[in-house]
Amino acid sequence: MAGYNVASLARLIDQFERMPGIGHKSAQRLAFYVLNMKKAEAEMFAQTILDAHEKIKKCSCCCNLAEDELCPICKSTNRDKSVVCVVEDPRDVLAFERTHEFEGTYHVLHGVISPMNGVGPEDITVKELLSRIAQGEIEEVIMATNPTVEGEATAMYISRLLKPMGITVSRLAYGVPVGAELEYADEVTLTRALEGRRTL
Amino acid sequence: MAGYNVASLARLIDQFERMPGIGHKSAQRLAFYVLNMKKAEAEMFAQTILDAHEKIKKCSCCCNLAEDELCPICKSTNRDKSVVCVVEDPRDVLAFERTHEFEGTYHVLHGVISPMNGVGPEDITVKELLSRIAQGEIEEVIMATNPTVEGEATAMYISRLLKPMGITVSRLAYGVPVGAELEYADEVTLTRALEGRRTL
Repeated sequence: MAGYNVASLARLIDQFERMPGIGHKSAQRLAFYVLNMKKAEAEMFAQTILDAHEKIKKCSCCCNLAEDELCPICKSTNRDKSVVCVVEDPRDVLAFERTHEFEGTYHVLHGVISPMNGVGPEDITVKELLSRIAQGEIEEVIMATNPTVEGEATAMYISRLLKPMGITVSRLAYGVPVGAELEYADEVTLTRALEGRRTL
Repeated sequence: MAGYNVASLARLIDQFERMPGIGHKSAQRLAFYVLNMKKAEAEMFAQTILDAHEKIKKCSCCCNLAEDELCPICKSTNRDKSVVCVVEDPRDVLAFERTHEFEGTYHVLHGVISPMNGVGPEDITVKELLSRIAQGEIEEVIMATNPTVEGEATAMYISRLLKPMGITVSRLAYGVPVGAELEYADEVTLTRALEGRRTL
């Protein structure tokens, strides 16, 4: 931070630098951008940050982000409440919504089980999922955690809890991504794609 | 913004997306980062933004950013007040300060003359520079605007104003950047490097 004699600027740069994917140069650029905002704009930006914190909470049903008690998907009467797609993160919900193909509901775990990082089942919303299922409406749970070691382990853990409850538990298909070149596919993905081959 | 049913989140993402070098994916990542901050941290972040706007003003002498009437460089008794390095932007001051070689003072233009963008001499701090010079202490002005068409034009414009005032006006040397490979140097830079060659 050499050279920043202006303490409040240094603090602003520092704030940006803590953000993911933002290095010192970018943080500097962002801080100067904020500094060059009109006063009203800067106040609006600050207020937006506070608002987001103030207003956004978890949907009491699916744990996705929501401003109301229920998120719009849980509130909707057009969604199939018997199918639940379990994802790690609110962003994953957006990814599925973009397909316009899934008509069920979601459950957002807000993380994955990761003993290395000290995250256990009690730190993610497994309890909330179980109590949703206990209400009896859910028939199928699609485990859509990331295809990583931790996402995998979390999917396995949850599926073991759910099977005794008489729920169909499925997992997203593995395979080569559409549009990708096989040449660049890794061995594990290719093996999974072979294993999961379908008769045409 | 399809899929963002959470209005305050959408607004936050939107705010980040307006920033330079931040695309939609990054804006999303930053917004979620802010959302995952502790409440106190978010409040601090918002306050830092407001503080920067509140506290940072222009040094009454060199127009660099300062929290006080004078910036630390103008305040310092160790700096040579007879030499002024004219730069476009506060970040350029930092760049020069990092060299630890320049002992003069600066003058920050806060822009360059750019008729294309509707920026005239009156929109940058030329007037302030002239009134500093009128005080009689300044002997040399180093034009250190960027080596771009606009930086160049601004340097020329200001030097024409200053020369009649009996001031030595110099310009940063052009040449190949240290550590670069000649193979990749552009023709103009190489031509300038040849023109500016020195006897060893």
